[in-house]
Amino acid sequence: MAEPATATQAAAPAVALLKDELDIVIPTIRNLDFLEMWRPFFQPYHLIIVQDGDPSKTIKVPEGFDYELYNRNDINRILGPKASCISFKDSACRCFGYMVSKKKYIFTIDDDCFVAKDPSGKAINALEQHIKNLLSPSTPFFFNTLYDPFREGADFVRGYPFSLREGVPTAASHGLWLNIPDYDAPTQLVKPLEKNTRYVDAVLTIPKGTLFPMCGMNLAFNRELIGPAMYFGLMGDGQPIGRYDDMWAGWCTKVICDHLGLGVKTGLPYIFHSKASNPFVNLRKEYKGIYWQEEIIPFFQQAVLPKDCTTVPKCYIELAKQVKEKLSKVDPYFDKLADAMVTWIEAWDELNPIGPVPNGKAA
Amino acid sequence: MAEPATATQAAAPAVALLKDELDIVIPTIRNLDFLEMWRPFFQPYHLIIVQDGDPSKTIKVPEGFDYELYNRNDINRILGPKASCISFKDSACRCFGYMVSKKKYIFTIDDDCFVAKDPSGKAINALEQHIKNLLSPSTPFFFNTLYDPFREGADFVRGYPFSLREGVPTAASHGLWLNIPDYDAPTQLVKPLEKNTRYVDAVLTIPKGTLFPMCGMNLAFNRELIGPAMYFGLMGDGQPIGRYDDMWAGWCTKVICDHLGLGVKTGLPYIFHSKASNPFVNLRKEYKGIYWQEEIIPFFQQAVLPKDCTTVPKCYIELAKQVKEKLSKVDPYFDKLADAMVTWIEAWDELNPIGPVPNGKAA
Repeated sequence: MAEPATATQAAAPAVALLKDELDIVIPTIRNLDFLEMWRPFFQPYHLIIVQDGDPSKTIKVPEGFDYELYNRNDINRILGPKASCISFKDSACRCFGYMVSKKKYIFTIDDDCFVAKDPSGKAINALEQHIKNLLSPSTPFFFNTLYDPFREGADFVRGYPFSLREGVPTAASHGLWLNIPDYDAPTQLVKPLEKNTRYVDAVLTIPKGTLFPMCGMNLAFNRELIGPAMYFGLMGDGQPIGRYDDMWAGWCTKVICDHLGLGVKTGLPYIFHSKASNPFVNLRKEYKGIYWQEEIIPFFQQAVLPKDCTTVPKCYIELAKQVKEKLSKVDPYFDKLADAMVTWIEAWDELNPIGPVPNGKAA
Repeated sequence: MAEPATATQAAAPAVALLKDELDIVIPTIRNLDFLEMWRPFFQPYHLIIVQDGDPSKTIKVPEGFDYELYNRNDINRILGPKASCISFKDSACRCFGYMVSKKKYIFTIDDDCFVAKDPSGKAINALEQHIKNLLSPSTPFFFNTLYDPFREGADFVRGYPFSLREGVPTAASHGLWLNIPDYDAPTQLVKPLEKNTRYVDAVLTIPKGTLFPMCGMNLAFNRELIGPAMYFGLMGDGQPIGRYDDMWAGWCTKVICDHLGLGVKTGLPYIFHSKASNPFVNLRKEYKGIYWQEEIIPFFQQAVLPKDCTTVPKCYIELAKQVKEKLSKVDPYFDKLADAMVTWIEAWDELNPIGPVPNGKAA
């Protein structure tokens, strides 16, 4: 587990599950090995690459991949003034890919994440595991001590209420990382050599009412169920904070999933996180977040959405309102962020118009 | 993982952690191999055996173990009329052992639980892992995606609030089972051949506000912190229900831990559960519990303890009051159970008198 799989090991038969229903969203590709390593698993899917930096630089995508690529100029052209809600020079720009996708499912991954091996040495098809997680229900209302009851060889244990065994639809699947763990800058500085070598063979539902730190490195979600909540905020160029894009999306997503009765899973699949980012740079990006989160997290823990918030966009607009009311006093940044949250939903609605459909349900 | 360790494999050097601070409580020993198998790990500790059936039968404890044994006659003699709160002809009687212990920690295990092997084939010292779990803090207020941050090679991940990293004291450690999983009778009937072969190398805190099905097969707890909540109810002889003794204790314990700011962990260690109990007998014992739990669990999920409940006995008496008020309408059994909960606390107080100590804190 201390080494990534080689491309040959990774070349196990790809399971083309949901081939026409899933987009892979990648925020820039700096590493030429990245797509080669993932080729056996990713090639059947459509890629959406959102270039985070200088639009004049070109990203070389190897032959054989089906992809679309967006740079800053494209984002500005497509969204017009609403492009202000998409971060620049930061991987948070990836959420633009969620917005332009027309698929039901999204898998997003960073370009320093390679194929990991399971304890038997087999290359892990991360995408396949995410799909399994997303297609099986979640169980947020009661904890199952044998973890995901829907995995092979597992079930609900004695004492699990039968009325809750149907579970709820799974909105998001949060995967983990072998090798370099996702630590904050202070922990990176204190433990520069720590590697994650523990392969925990589990998937579990994060219980209702519990928040978690959602990492965007290796994440899949059901775009139809939760897409508009997956906004990665204002980070990078011109912003006072970085590395909280996925955290922000995670807090909003979890609060909305809890309100709407949707599930969030964490655990498998692992990817191999190849290198730690620079802890000094990270500290500069993070330090405001590190103290802001002491107020943000209680805010999200206490956030209550009214009953008439029955859709994700409605919930998200309501959250934006509450952010403005309650977090602006922490820093004027949150006032700007609250506005950007509204702009994000407006842009989402523009690119994803909801029309009436024959059976009366929104498409 | 499909076979238990042999006694020789189990004979790894025993870690005599907390030797003078922990009692092992066992509800009857029918299986002569049981103590031999565990000898390398258990021999340094004191055993409390609570015989669940006919007092005229004698339990043979092999040479070399330090133990005390209680049968029904002993329980009646020690508790007098209050013995009514201790179940007869049911392993729920084990909680009498918690009451008579004078130690800080308790480990309780069933006699059909053997030493399991980890994936490398090494015999698992379950007690040592429980002690590690109990001696390190819990993190009930926010979920850590790399599981127990206090294990070697792990830490808090990016986005985990620093103010919550100290954690809270751990009150209970719930271990799991390889081979025969702890299923209810309907699941046993439907999946008679299912074995648990998945070794999940994780310990995690069950988040605040989340209930779980606590199994008494392989359980450790800090008696000083939570002992009086570990009442295993009225089961077995003369009672309309069985196999809910540990569940009842788990619901009460978790609600009280959440109220008092204590933690409950689940996961490692595994024991090897050797044989499934008879599903037809189990169904007879369980069937009332299976429908009652549909009302009991919402009751516990909604239970609120007043602020002046600052000790476990106070919390427990308050819970007993709420059980009487709200569950008696489900069945008259809960009226009787609520009374027994009060009797249990009275008996506990009698055997564990609290005297004033110099620094003004209760001993």
